[in-house]
Amino acid sequence: MKSQVRVAILGATGAVGTELLELLESRNFPIAELKLLASSRSAGRTLPFRGEQLPVAAVGEDSFKNIDLVLASAGGTTSKAWAATAVESGAVVIDNSSAFRMNPQVPLVIPEVNPEAAATHQGIIANPNCTTILMAMAVWPLHQVQPVKRIIAATYQSASGAGFQAMEELKLQAQAILNGDTPPTEIFPYPLAFNLFPHNSALNEEGYCEEEMKMVNETRKIFNAPEMKISATCVRVPVLRAHSEAINLEFSEPFPVAKAREILSNAPGVRLVEDWQANYFPMPIDATGKDEVLVGRIRQDLSHPSGLELWLCGDQIRKGAALNAVQIAELVVGC
Amino acid sequence: MKSQVRVAILGATGAVGTELLELLESRNFPIAELKLLASSRSAGRTLPFRGEQLPVAAVGEDSFKNIDLVLASAGGTTSKAWAATAVESGAVVIDNSSAFRMNPQVPLVIPEVNPEAAATHQGIIANPNCTTILMAMAVWPLHQVQPVKRIIAATYQSASGAGFQAMEELKLQAQAILNGDTPPTEIFPYPLAFNLFPHNSALNEEGYCEEEMKMVNETRKIFNAPEMKISATCVRVPVLRAHSEAINLEFSEPFPVAKAREILSNAPGVRLVEDWQANYFPMPIDATGKDEVLVGRIRQDLSHPSGLELWLCGDQIRKGAALNAVQIAELVVGC
Repeated sequence: MKSQVRVAILGATGAVGTELLELLESRNFPIAELKLLASSRSAGRTLPFRGEQLPVAAVGEDSFKNIDLVLASAGGTTSKAWAATAVESGAVVIDNSSAFRMNPQVPLVIPEVNPEAAATHQGIIANPNCTTILMAMAVWPLHQVQPVKRIIAATYQSASGAGFQAMEELKLQAQAILNGDTPPTEIFPYPLAFNLFPHNSALNEEGYCEEEMKMVNETRKIFNAPEMKISATCVRVPVLRAHSEAINLEFSEPFPVAKAREILSNAPGVRLVEDWQANYFPMPIDATGKDEVLVGRIRQDLSHPSGLELWLCGDQIRKGAALNAVQIAELVVGC
Repeated sequence: MKSQVRVAILGATGAVGTELLELLESRNFPIAELKLLASSRSAGRTLPFRGEQLPVAAVGEDSFKNIDLVLASAGGTTSKAWAATAVESGAVVIDNSSAFRMNPQVPLVIPEVNPEAAATHQGIIANPNCTTILMAMAVWPLHQVQPVKRIIAATYQSASGAGFQAMEELKLQAQAILNGDTPPTEIFPYPLAFNLFPHNSALNEEGYCEEEMKMVNETRKIFNAPEMKISATCVRVPVLRAHSEAINLEFSEPFPVAKAREILSNAPGVRLVEDWQANYFPMPIDATGKDEVLVGRIRQDLSHPSGLELWLCGDQIRKGAALNAVQIAELVVGC
């Protein structure tokens, strides 16, 4: 690709869109031109980039002319509607939605895990789901040393996964409850403030929600481990923007904790956060706004001689979405 | 024991103490006399019981004279200091602290699980930890039908486990954050509002906190299953007073989901909460103030042919503490 790239952000006004803008600027992405696209509802707004206010245009048939790279983050329906148009115009689409992730023609990429997959794209590269990315960042370095046989995950997912409005609703709910009023539930089906509930994405016949199946299927695809045994319980918690995960790993033989610690302390994009004296481990507020996935509390599984338990937190909007997409873009552009 | 019982509550002004008072009244416990005891700091206060205001006295050497039953809920240090005095005075002590739980002479009782153990007491009966009780209520009925080989638990624990002041601090923190101020952290080591952190009880050499080891060791003792394989990750979340748990169970052979559902829908003290059409499952706000442990999302473990996943919520102060203690008292008294 050219050294200076003409980029469009589709869904620029959303939680991930605005983070994409910030990252393109802070990482000094080689931009020749930046076009901000959104639904007609958001058109006419402006967003700051490199000291200027850029206008947001409504996405349309001509939006992708003379665009080299599209960072799409406007949901699956919008991606399905516009990705083909963008690719036909000659752009590479890095798609943050779930629309194409399990399509065998579409690489699903975490740059620290399977960067080589990006090169096989046919116009679209999919960005994995936030919970998948965060888990994979911690598990992959261990899996390289000794294959993981089985993963059991329980998540603690922040409001940000449901967008800006969801974060706002969480705050409004908390204030309402503190005031003794009924909390509003326009975005979430139930009050999230001072409460929590299993992730409310659609359930399959076995009772797993889409979010859980993303962790199962996307991890298998990214790791190129179609037989890997994975089960997950995904839960929405009243946290603003970083996800946490309790991960139980089973190997074929014992994996010494000290070795896991050493591997993860040197793993790219991972920060080992373990202060055993102070009883201090990864927390959402410390992961917020950070690029790294914070991993800690690595311990021998008490219930299995070849098991490890670990705990992680990662910024859902950043490494869980926008940062990973920009890193894929950097791979494509060859930064 | 006598049909009308002289009862003392030690730690009457705490979160569990006040719930004990409410339960003794609502369950019409056969009380001849009720004595409220607390530290000297709380002495002089009064608490309502059966339309009267009862005075709270400071606990002392003579507090247990002519008392048949002591419900102790003032922490391990207080229990260790006074339990022997109470027993020597002829009282039976039902102790909510962790002080005596793992003492081989002391039965550890959940009335729905091991009521027979209560009869073996030598003056003290221990009330298990909240996370243990809630998990055991859901797991025991299944374990009766097919022995559980292994449990992997991840908890989502409310502020109430750390007492009244912790619940108040969570609300103060939330308001401070909403106001853009620094949240107070006098009870909790870190902000809990809009955040979460691994349970901050003391860590052992393997890196497990006391709360996690309670789930391991107490469950084994209550189930009389010293070899049962259990591992846990305990996490404090910004919820006021009900705990949630994601439980992964492994059996020796497949346990049909339909059978588990049937068993749990008939289990004492358990309510099956599963509306698959509405994507509605147990939530802390629905468990708050309820006697039953809400269990749902029972599903085949995707990572193991003989595994089940389930999700539960239970009121930490009620079945997790005060209700279970009063149920033990009812066993002792023979209600």
